[in-house]
Amino acid sequence: MTPEQMLDVAVDEARKGLAEGGIPIGAALFTTDGVLLGSGHNRRVQNDDPSVHGETDAFRNAGRQRDYRSTVMVTTLSPCWYCSGLVRQFNIGAVVIGEAKTFSGGHDWLAENGVQVTLLEDERCVSMMTEFIADRPDLWNEDIGVAE
Amino acid sequence: MTPEQMLDVAVDEARKGLAEGGIPIGAALFTTDGVLLGSGHNRRVQNDDPSVHGETDAFRNAGRQRDYRSTVMVTTLSPCWYCSGLVRQFNIGAVVIGEAKTFSGGHDWLAENGVQVTLLEDERCVSMMTEFIADRPDLWNEDIGVAE
Repeated sequence: MTPEQMLDVAVDEARKGLAEGGIPIGAALFTTDGVLLGSGHNRRVQNDDPSVHGETDAFRNAGRQRDYRSTVMVTTLSPCWYCSGLVRQFNIGAVVIGEAKTFSGGHDWLAENGVQVTLLEDERCVSMMTEFIADRPDLWNEDIGVAE
Repeated sequence: MTPEQMLDVAVDEARKGLAEGGIPIGAALFTTDGVLLGSGHNRRVQNDDPSVHGETDAFRNAGRQRDYRSTVMVTTLSPCWYCSGLVRQFNIGAVVIGEAKTFSGGHDWLAENGVQVTLLEDERCVSMMTEFIADRPDLWNEDIGVAE
């Protein structure tokens, strides 16, 4: 399974989130062999829950795993510090990122700490977030902790 | 409200978690004026959910907030990278930590990045975690992503 194919799953999740009225960020956790362990999307609006980012939802939906070193977290957007911290703490081996143009989180820090980082700069991801941020800057800023 | 009084709330949460058969780590989010916004505890075992650490449960239970700069996250144990990332991303202004003897996460990194960090080295917290780690090393290692 290619990084691009893994990203397709995260993009589908982001689109589901958007259709639900939520913030369009999706993610999925795969084994390095391409087995999908779990996928998810940001649920701040849908669940009224600030703790559910795309990556944390995918991580939760993957269930309890005993070893994350041979897993890949794919996400439509550069992981924020919260989600980068998740990757580092659980020793997730690799991260595939849709884009880091509209927001850049902790992916350089992850690379410095041994995580294999692949940045795809996927145009679907860029346009989805660009449109969302223009449409709902209030929600977007709330989701990344930027106060007014 | 003193840091020690805030810690009491987190200790109560950790004890609840232990009584439920879970990992005894508790946390709470306060305003700097001492108003409790939310508290919670690790729910890996209880909810079969690897994404719920003490701090993320407290953060969730505090609901959606528009500005975290004047809040204090109190936790019984040094926050792991996942929970340290949460604090950094949402610009939580201060962290009060029960102890960092049994585990040391990202609290120095938080201090370097402008978070006010208070480390209490509370003996109740040290003994609770020391006993838990001796009793259930499997669960503890799972919770911090240490593979066998």
